[in-house]
Amino acid sequence: MSLGRLYGVGVGPGDPELVTVKATRVIAAAPVVAFFAKAGRRGNARGIVDRWLKPSHIELPLFYPMTTESHFDDPPYREALKLFYAESGAAIAAHLDGGRDVALLSEGDPLFYGSFMHLFIRLRERFKVTIVPGVSSICGAWGAAGTAMTWGDDSLVILPATLPLEELIRRLAQADAAVIMKLGRNFPRARAALLKCGMAERAIYVERATMANEAVMPLADKCDESAPYFSMILVPGQGRRP
Amino acid sequence: MSLGRLYGVGVGPGDPELVTVKATRVIAAAPVVAFFAKAGRRGNARGIVDRWLKPSHIELPLFYPMTTESHFDDPPYREALKLFYAESGAAIAAHLDGGRDVALLSEGDPLFYGSFMHLFIRLRERFKVTIVPGVSSICGAWGAAGTAMTWGDDSLVILPATLPLEELIRRLAQADAAVIMKLGRNFPRARAALLKCGMAERAIYVERATMANEAVMPLADKCDESAPYFSMILVPGQGRRP
Repeated sequence: MSLGRLYGVGVGPGDPELVTVKATRVIAAAPVVAFFAKAGRRGNARGIVDRWLKPSHIELPLFYPMTTESHFDDPPYREALKLFYAESGAAIAAHLDGGRDVALLSEGDPLFYGSFMHLFIRLRERFKVTIVPGVSSICGAWGAAGTAMTWGDDSLVILPATLPLEELIRRLAQADAAVIMKLGRNFPRARAALLKCGMAERAIYVERATMANEAVMPLADKCDESAPYFSMILVPGQGRRP
Repeated sequence: MSLGRLYGVGVGPGDPELVTVKATRVIAAAPVVAFFAKAGRRGNARGIVDRWLKPSHIELPLFYPMTTESHFDDPPYREALKLFYAESGAAIAAHLDGGRDVALLSEGDPLFYGSFMHLFIRLRERFKVTIVPGVSSICGAWGAAGTAMTWGDDSLVILPATLPLEELIRRLAQADAAVIMKLGRNFPRARAALLKCGMAERAIYVERATMANEAVMPLADKCDESAPYFSMILVPGQGRRP
């Protein structure tokens, strides 16, 4: 019996219609559909592909060991994550060893800040893997905002808001266009960095892009101090245009 | 009679299956499908959606005024482009004024270095516009390479190879992960910058990702001095992973 193939399937930023035709085909053909989720929740990626699942699918939810994200430098947290990825990899490997293809869902694109990557590097030596690129969360965000991001020779810098303030400022200072991701409780720091760099005025805040409860506003209008995980700040480029 | 709506439709990096479900629906419903192309050619975006077009579609090709890209600082080139975008905008506006929706195709994502943006800013005041995000060329490239790009707190810097050498070096020096786009005849400069920054060794060269003639190789194995327009260099991040 031949081994199953692992598919890393990007399912896009949230709108179920922003799944690719290839993703729908791969999901339809795979006997097993795996996805990450918080304990007790269905998981965003699973929700996005709901209309493409059939009763015959074997669903393999991979529940994160904790409900709120702790700091990565905390050793028990890091160890718990390591164990989680090892166990998740083993659960998927059991299906692949049994000859069953597995479609592992990933919000946005699978190789851009995705949990999928942690299983990819653990399984790619033993099994064949096919990547199905997806519409990334950043494209979803600037599409929702209707913001043309990069013109001509503009560079684009993508930064996680988890970086220290000085690092954010140092890197924004060299950017023509920028995206700050992973806002959450780091939102005030991201705003402070943009103010320092003179980029706050043209910045746009986008929350849950392409989802039902999407919100878009100038950064200046976002007055509270916190933001959900699925939010980001866009700073459009101002490069050449004829 | 009400005005038509303009759709900026991302059609992905090249593989026709990497079109989103939303793009196929929008194209099917729009009476007019517009796309950019070199004179005498069908155009890549038009080729990608071939299977989704019907005989009833009105096709509106927008032919670039020159076949090879000149330098933007050349005034006659810039003026020719300006005229081209004005005329293209007028051709689309004529359909919208006539009440016909227009799906304007864009390779990759429409708001990320796309010709679409030049018509978007010319038409958005007069007409309603809906953006349909697409799988960007960069996601197609790292998917084809099977390269996990950004981990944990990694920043990602996206640079056009058209920048001067010193600028490329200065910006790469602050990047955890990087993509250099628009290679073409700028390829040797991009490689020189990566060598200078100590990033060449882990860099990957990707040509025509997700298309029939795709090629992926370590940058070190790319020995000639030129590259096609649809090529880029990826430098994967090395951030934290449990």
